Amino acid sequence: MAVSPDSETPHQVLIVGAGLGGLTAARKLAARGIEVLLIDRNNYHQFQPLIYQVATAQLGMRDVARPLRAIFRKERAVTVKTGEVASIDPVARTVTTSDGVTYRGRILVIAAGAEVNFFNVPGAQDNSFPLYSVDDAARLRSRFLGALDAADRDRRYVERGALNVVIVGGGATGVETAGAVAESMREVVPTYLPDDLARAGRVYLVDMLPDVLMPFNEKSRAYAAEKLREYGVELRLGQSVTEVRKDGVVLQDGSFIPSRTVVWAGGLKARGVLSGTGLPQGKGGRIDVNPDLTVPGFEGVYVLGDSANIVDAKGTKLPQLGSVAQQSGAWAAQNIVADLGGGQRTPFVYRDKGIMAMIGRGAAIAELGSRHRHIAGPVAFLAWLAVHMVLLSGLWEKLHALWNWAWDYGTRRRPQIIVDRPDAYAIDWSDERTPHGGASP
Amino acid sequence: MAVSPDSETPHQVLIVGAGLGGLTAARKLAARGIEVLLIDRNNYHQFQPLIYQVATAQLGMRDVARPLRAIFRKERAVTVKTGEVASIDPVARTVTTSDGVTYRGRILVIAAGAEVNFFNVPGAQDNSFPLYSVDDAARLRSRFLGALDAADRDRRYVERGALNVVIVGGGATGVETAGAVAESMREVVPTYLPDDLARAGRVYLVDMLPDVLMPFNEKSRAYAAEKLREYGVELRLGQSVTEVRKDGVVLQDGSFIPSRTVVWAGGLKARGVLSGTGLPQGKGGRIDVNPDLTVPGFEGVYVLGDSANIVDAKGTKLPQLGSVAQQSGAWAAQNIVADLGGGQRTPFVYRDKGIMAMIGRGAAIAELGSRHRHIAGPVAFLAWLAVHMVLLSGLWEKLHALWNWAWDYGTRRRPQIIVDRPDAYAIDWSDERTPHGGASP
Repeated sequence: MAVSPDSETPHQVLIVGAGLGGLTAARKLAARGIEVLLIDRNNYHQFQPLIYQVATAQLGMRDVARPLRAIFRKERAVTVKTGEVASIDPVARTVTTSDGVTYRGRILVIAAGAEVNFFNVPGAQDNSFPLYSVDDAARLRSRFLGALDAADRDRRYVERGALNVVIVGGGATGVETAGAVAESMREVVPTYLPDDLARAGRVYLVDMLPDVLMPFNEKSRAYAAEKLREYGVELRLGQSVTEVRKDGVVLQDGSFIPSRTVVWAGGLKARGVLSGTGLPQGKGGRIDVNPDLTVPGFEGVYVLGDSANIVDAKGTKLPQLGSVAQQSGAWAAQNIVADLGGGQRTPFVYRDKGIMAMIGRGAAIAELGSRHRHIAGPVAFLAWLAVHMVLLSGLWEKLHALWNWAWDYGTRRRPQIIVDRPDAYAIDWSDERTPHGGASP
Repeated sequence: MAVSPDSETPHQVLIVGAGLGGLTAARKLAARGIEVLLIDRNNYHQFQPLIYQVATAQLGMRDVARPLRAIFRKERAVTVKTGEVASIDPVARTVTTSDGVTYRGRILVIAAGAEVNFFNVPGAQDNSFPLYSVDDAARLRSRFLGALDAADRDRRYVERGALNVVIVGGGATGVETAGAVAESMREVVPTYLPDDLARAGRVYLVDMLPDVLMPFNEKSRAYAAEKLREYGVELRLGQSVTEVRKDGVVLQDGSFIPSRTVVWAGGLKARGVLSGTGLPQGKGGRIDVNPDLTVPGFEGVYVLGDSANIVDAKGTKLPQLGSVAQQSGAWAAQNIVADLGGGQRTPFVYRDKGIMAMIGRGAAIAELGSRHRHIAGPVAFLAWLAVHMVLLSGLWEKLHALWNWAWDYGTRRRPQIIVDRPDAYAIDWSDERTPHGGASP
């Protein structure tokens, strides 16, 4: 299909991506009466910090995925479109979808997020489950259940890794996932499988770095590692993964962990669509931006959140965090208001409120404020709950997530523990070709 | 994999299928302390009567899909296995899964339900969406949203059927789906698309019979047809579908309805796994059973629900209904108790409590009791709600479905309106080869 009539009439602001960055920018602009077209590949906003809980059936998909059109129901200034952006032209300030529809903006905001980086590890893309989207989480949940069901049918699947979950990557996503999977192994799997099978479940966390949660301070890291071990997670640190096979993971030292449920929390890189735009790509393929979030040499183009390498007004290189995405979205909106009103853009000042990670029920770590004051345990856990309840977008979502958590914490049951992705559920048990594999059937 | 050790120790009762029939039988047997192995392809029970509401985003998948192991959490007598039954041997009373695990029962209960019958209509299997499982419903919802999103990107998709939904089949499923889709077109699509696009939505209901809801009496049928028309459903009755193409539906009179969202509610047949078992297959491929639900010539084999052709003690040929499945499950359990206790089997007596169908908010029909007393409108609607609330299995499910209905009825918003099946969402707009097609891009 040819260029859409839409391209004839440029929008005031065209925003690519409805993650925390794009969504915040759209809201702030709309509040100032500026007309926005917001395009995303999904018809929903996904709340990344809780996606791992969908994988472990603590939350349903809908708790962390909110329909975009519902979010902007009362905002006449924002038009939502769903479409896969196939190319971006930062000079013309247009984006074109995979089915050939083009949108144009007077100002273009690229908030396209990131995609999973498999770092060219052989087999990783084909045989592991990333955990960046709710779609990923639904697939991972089905695979985990598929492996449990297989072991329950035939115990000989156990030695072939049916009850082993391997998490690759010891950052926040990896640690939170390992904690949540270990909790499931302890509390949910025994309601699903006979006792002896349930006891056979193992959770491994692998990272090439010598410690988990590197952005956190030493006290937090020590607490996290201790808690994970207490929960039964086997830490394989200082070890890189050299191959992910369909029957398990090969580590640097040659050891092999049989598993059909390998979670890839190994890292992110910029979206592929950014290359070929001519925009200056720096570390991780992300766009190097000016402190005011515009791109040097490209008039009217902003890049923010995980798509950008941001150095803020204080000279700090900012990490890829939800809070950075959100604040950079708000700041970009403010600068766009200045652009359109003839005002002056200002350099982004990141307000570091701290970082936190959940390890399990009653066990979280938090480093609060810009001075990263360490707290851990039940108080940090309650802080985690409160913060996520506030951040979670939408009344339905807040009530519903609370309902799910309360049900889970009260009954220790997981109503969401159903297989909803038959394709991910199906495990190919055939062919063990190399010495690492189990016995052939 | 070879025969599992499980096959060495036969279970007292082996039940294939955890639909309404198999589930009821397992519950009743467990209540009498009889040991049961229950196997299903899904790790959840699905409540068929409400599946169409998942397709229209009134309910979430989890409202109608309840984890089997949660249902039998407190029943030590019931073991649940998840697996695809690939073959059934009614002489040895064994079933074997697709991965080669065999289970044996002293008594075998086949409650395998039905599968969709496309009646060899060309293209139907590839290009239409059946609506028999929650998986079907999730896929249909994503397709419907995919078509709306496409029309919203480019209005030229409208004339190519993006906003047309065609429902094939005027039975209860077809009528309830048509009513629910029409209600969505009226109340939900206008919150999703610009006004002029929302007004362009069309719903068609096609059936080769001259009337909808043939099992109902004339008054009910007239009410249903009138309501559907009032809701904007275009009825194409007395018309068979000769082809389902990826761009629409060809009718017997040669007319063509462009659509990318074709719902197949055309009928059911017995599961393919029943053929080749040597069991006597009658109408629809279903197994002809004795009035006591055993199979003539096969010791210790029961067939019930949608898998069986049942003629009850009063000589009535029973239809494929949830209530028949449920009652035949309970009756089979009672006869099995007699078998095992040296008692006498009794012929099944079906207690007809009536039939009902929902057309839209405040508009349902019901024929109550064995004399099928007709009621329609708000009273029938409330009766429908009450009956389904009682039938719906599980406290979580009842509370959650009520919550969803209340939210929908109160706010007229559908929190479940998200795309969760990227594969079904994607529409192939290429190739219009024949004269029926729209313009080529």
